Amino acid sequence: MTTQAPLKASPLYFSPISPSHNVAPGKEGYGRYMLTIPWSRTSGWGQAKISPRADLSFDPLAGVLQYATTCFEGMKCYKDEAGDLRLFRPNLNFDRLKRSGARLGLPAEWDNAELLDLFSKLLYLETDLVPQADGQNLYIRPTLLETSESFGIKEDAFASEALLYVVTSVNLGAGLYASAEGKGLRLDACSEFIRAWPGGTGSYKLGANYGTVSVAKKPGFAMSLWLHGAEDFVSEAGAMNIWIIKEAKDGVLEFVTMSLDNGIVLPGVTRASIIQLLEDHASGKAEFPLPGMPKNIRVVQRDIPMAEIVEGTKDGSLKGMFGCGTGVVVVQVAEIQYKNELYQIPANPAIKLLRDTMTAVQRGAIAHEDWSYVIPAWEAGSAQEHDVDGQKVVA
Amino acid sequence: MTTQAPLKASPLYFSPISPSHNVAPGKEGYGRYMLTIPWSRTSGWGQAKISPRADLSFDPLAGVLQYATTCFEGMKCYKDEAGDLRLFRPNLNFDRLKRSGARLGLPAEWDNAELLDLFSKLLYLETDLVPQADGQNLYIRPTLLETSESFGIKEDAFASEALLYVVTSVNLGAGLYASAEGKGLRLDACSEFIRAWPGGTGSYKLGANYGTVSVAKKPGFAMSLWLHGAEDFVSEAGAMNIWIIKEAKDGVLEFVTMSLDNGIVLPGVTRASIIQLLEDHASGKAEFPLPGMPKNIRVVQRDIPMAEIVEGTKDGSLKGMFGCGTGVVVVQVAEIQYKNELYQIPANPAIKLLRDTMTAVQRGAIAHEDWSYVIPAWEAGSAQEHDVDGQKVVA
Repeated sequence: MTTQAPLKASPLYFSPISPSHNVAPGKEGYGRYMLTIPWSRTSGWGQAKISPRADLSFDPLAGVLQYATTCFEGMKCYKDEAGDLRLFRPNLNFDRLKRSGARLGLPAEWDNAELLDLFSKLLYLETDLVPQADGQNLYIRPTLLETSESFGIKEDAFASEALLYVVTSVNLGAGLYASAEGKGLRLDACSEFIRAWPGGTGSYKLGANYGTVSVAKKPGFAMSLWLHGAEDFVSEAGAMNIWIIKEAKDGVLEFVTMSLDNGIVLPGVTRASIIQLLEDHASGKAEFPLPGMPKNIRVVQRDIPMAEIVEGTKDGSLKGMFGCGTGVVVVQVAEIQYKNELYQIPANPAIKLLRDTMTAVQRGAIAHEDWSYVIPAWEAGSAQEHDVDGQKVVA
Repeated sequence: MTTQAPLKASPLYFSPISPSHNVAPGKEGYGRYMLTIPWSRTSGWGQAKISPRADLSFDPLAGVLQYATTCFEGMKCYKDEAGDLRLFRPNLNFDRLKRSGARLGLPAEWDNAELLDLFSKLLYLETDLVPQADGQNLYIRPTLLETSESFGIKEDAFASEALLYVVTSVNLGAGLYASAEGKGLRLDACSEFIRAWPGGTGSYKLGANYGTVSVAKKPGFAMSLWLHGAEDFVSEAGAMNIWIIKEAKDGVLEFVTMSLDNGIVLPGVTRASIIQLLEDHASGKAEFPLPGMPKNIRVVQRDIPMAEIVEGTKDGSLKGMFGCGTGVVVVQVAEIQYKNELYQIPANPAIKLLRDTMTAVQRGAIAHEDWSYVIPAWEAGSAQEHDVDGQKVVA
């Protein structure tokens, strides 16, 4: 077997945009650059390249076009008070992309530090596009997909050729959050289309989990609340993990979200971070970073049947509900349509507190362990560089 | 609302390949042409075009790349004894493509006769590539996918822009059949990766059903036998519908395949055709077209638990097993690995009889209702034509 080249941040091909190309800072739109790194089974990772955002070309029988061999991540770049750019726990996204890639027979090995170096350079080039206001950001979409022909029965499950690329977009998710601010989201509980099931792909961030269920969306509702199983357990809402806040029989305020055990829900980075913040607070290991969180709380990971939510709206035990994810961060759920009935979910101040804490940590306003990564400055033209086919190569 | 243009076969843009472009007849490879028909939500179907096979370009955030909004069909073009080209029940594939498209929010309305006209022209251009030998063919891959950006939460589930394209390839599926000829396929029964479930997409021909399960393939086995449910019911094998032949308690020879009721298996064209052939034969409506099929048979559509197959190999009630689909037509299953045990499945002459009947009907050697469509001759250069941007427009 030939040696497969590892993913390397250097040398980097850099192809600058023309001086006439300009997008006004803060304007809704795409980042101007994209990062591309090709891969082949025989030679491994190829030349990393940052170049102007452009269309991608594929053979008509490429795996991604025929058999949905594509996975992605959602990440955000924030600009802090000092004007520095920050990423939130990027290695968790990189690790999840490896896991998704492995599930599809795509490349799943690289040094996260090398990839982070490339992300940093891409994002640094977009510095003037990253909004500084609280809650705003440059959304980052890393995508890993099969470019090689995939068509007949293959000898094994692995792609011959793949591409990892990264594009950016200003403020994805902010519009959804704004539409719900103060009043919360309306969800339609859906048992007609089942998003995920044990042995399926619900816990991987595959394109296939998203396009196949978008037809479920009902007019007047922000998104679907996904149900599964004989008891209509809730799993996710839209592309968010979902939580209920419940007063338990022992008087403790429970934050309940679905367990990862049966592989139905995505292991969200925001979900994991909220669990840690709440558990540290409950155990006394660390105070909740913003004042106001009750002390007597508990995190529970288990199935949540719709009957429990319905019952909770009647007996008053349901104290709130929210979704979380990279796009919206944390957003209140105000109303659920289920079997032609509408159920009102009470508001809870802990939801805003969680959101404010998460956005403050993301923007570096609250320090929390090493969750926030500051992107170093990069002078694209400064390093050893020379022209190759009209492109700069930065060593 | 603006009027959406219907899909029209005429006028057709035709861009001929250069005379120097040549693929030897019968050589394994791709057809030289592709058919493309763009669609937009505001204007409907756009200009149909037959042009040299080429890469397709997409925005990095196109729905097909991000969220797997792609579906396809598998069809075959046969060359009969007289040298005419034939399609097998093409309207069933066109109708299924509409159904798949609708499931993904893609365009799902067109006049099949218009589409068949375009298919016929595309295939006629490849006449010299279509092999004439029994069991050989030009495989056709129609694909329908979302080209527009699909990224944030949309107002509804429908694509803004889509593309229907068709490419061809010589002899797909023939290799798999040849590898199994005389000895049958070895299958690995898989309960780790679950292909489909009620409320999912198993009964639609979506790319997402294929790329997400290819990692299940075990070395030494032709493909996976998909299991589901608490009783390890068999659903499909690889991309084929699956059948068992069983001696029932009343002495009747049963041909059993999974029911379509729970939406887990694909409603295969080959599956439907075999059901009709067998049921007509059993009921006395029409004799089986090739001699040798027993008279005392019955078609049963129901769940098949693995335990029944295991038991049948022991008590002798299992008389055979086969897969069917456009690629392989009909192929014997010889062995199944299940829970670390190997089970030998007996051969049955009815399997070869079904295959020979299907291929004979497909190639027009046996007439059966209107199942075989003869492609009319098309002189691409003959109709009213003029140059537009160097391309021929054929009215």
